[in-house]
Amino acid sequence: MSSSPTVAIAGGTGHLGAAIARRLAQAGWRVIVGSRDAARAQAAAERLSQSLGTPIPAAANRQAAAEASIVIVTVPFASQASVLLDIRASVQGKIVVDTTVPLVPPRVMRVQLPPEGAAALIAQKILGEGVSVVSAFHNVAADRLATDEDVDCDVLVFGDSKDARQQVVQLVEACRLRAWHAGPLASSAAAEALTSVLIFVNKHHGIDGAGIRITGQAAAAGSRAS
Amino acid sequence: MSSSPTVAIAGGTGHLGAAIARRLAQAGWRVIVGSRDAARAQAAAERLSQSLGTPIPAAANRQAAAEASIVIVTVPFASQASVLLDIRASVQGKIVVDTTVPLVPPRVMRVQLPPEGAAALIAQKILGEGVSVVSAFHNVAADRLATDEDVDCDVLVFGDSKDARQQVVQLVEACRLRAWHAGPLASSAAAEALTSVLIFVNKHHGIDGAGIRITGQAAAAGSRAS
Repeated sequence: MSSSPTVAIAGGTGHLGAAIARRLAQAGWRVIVGSRDAARAQAAAERLSQSLGTPIPAAANRQAAAEASIVIVTVPFASQASVLLDIRASVQGKIVVDTTVPLVPPRVMRVQLPPEGAAALIAQKILGEGVSVVSAFHNVAADRLATDEDVDCDVLVFGDSKDARQQVVQLVEACRLRAWHAGPLASSAAAEALTSVLIFVNKHHGIDGAGIRITGQAAAAGSRAS
Repeated sequence: MSSSPTVAIAGGTGHLGAAIARRLAQAGWRVIVGSRDAARAQAAAERLSQSLGTPIPAAANRQAAAEASIVIVTVPFASQASVLLDIRASVQGKIVVDTTVPLVPPRVMRVQLPPEGAAALIAQKILGEGVSVVSAFHNVAADRLATDEDVDCDVLVFGDSKDARQQVVQLVEACRLRAWHAGPLASSAAAEALTSVLIFVNKHHGIDGAGIRITGQAAAAGSRAS
């Protein structure tokens, strides 16, 4: 597994970040847990280390990002801009996986996309064209991902660079999730919006952790395209 | 089945409209096929009548809408406004099911939501507050729906009136599809956007008619809410 890239999790002390860090580490990837506060990152990494029986390094977000080739940002929408500004210089030329869902409390069951169209497009604007922004993990329930069980939810992966998207598809698959190339970064709006729908479905239909699966049959050979 | 409401299909000569008309008629619902042009509506209804062995009435959109209590609009985004303006006076006090997906050719694999946020919100604005607009059927492949086979795709149903939404959920179920209360009309953006993602997935992954399923387990009894 030494060929796997080093991944930093900016926001690795939250539920989603810790769950992704755990699954990647289980798959043999080198993971660095990041947080605004290095001491909190260290505490989260120690919990993870004890649970896995393997030492997991930790650092403040900016330093963690500097040491990685892929940086996953798992912070609430309200913190997205400040965290991205903090790591911007450390991620030039790298892949940043933005997982931000633009929920606007208290009405989190209503789709309220930002004027920019998608949180992923905000990330690209802040980080600049030197960064390959890919978005993913919008619809997965973090508490399911935190377990060792199979998660009954696909991951839609968006990005304008096909190569970067492919690397993130492999990262998602390393987390034992099914991943799909889902389109350009602008299309991230679909998955970001879907999260509010899933929260509504959970409440209205009494579902615990609703997710999505892509259905459909493979077409005749030869129809596969870019 | 005499208690089922009469349903008009504005745009009933298209693939989606004809497929919905067919499935509702098979379920015993009274369906009126509408089109801008009464002669084209009549021709489509005759094809349907022959296929089903039951007479299916037809009329120009406005008259078809006047005779129904639920009107389903199945027209391309470019025709949405003109068709809704045409039927506006005929649908006051009724339920209009808008199926419009705001695809902007030629880049139909990229999410390009309208400035209003969703095609369903455009419909509500045009029809006015006297109409209960519900949106649905965004993600179902029309050519699958046109067959007698099971369609492996759920339908997300959006609307600000819970009662109207429930009537449309029943209509979707009469089409032998699984339906979900998915939230307020503004959240229709999620399903409208998802169609571009499914078109991308079809192309990139070589899938024929990709759809979605909502996953998740029923939570403990008593958690069901509004």
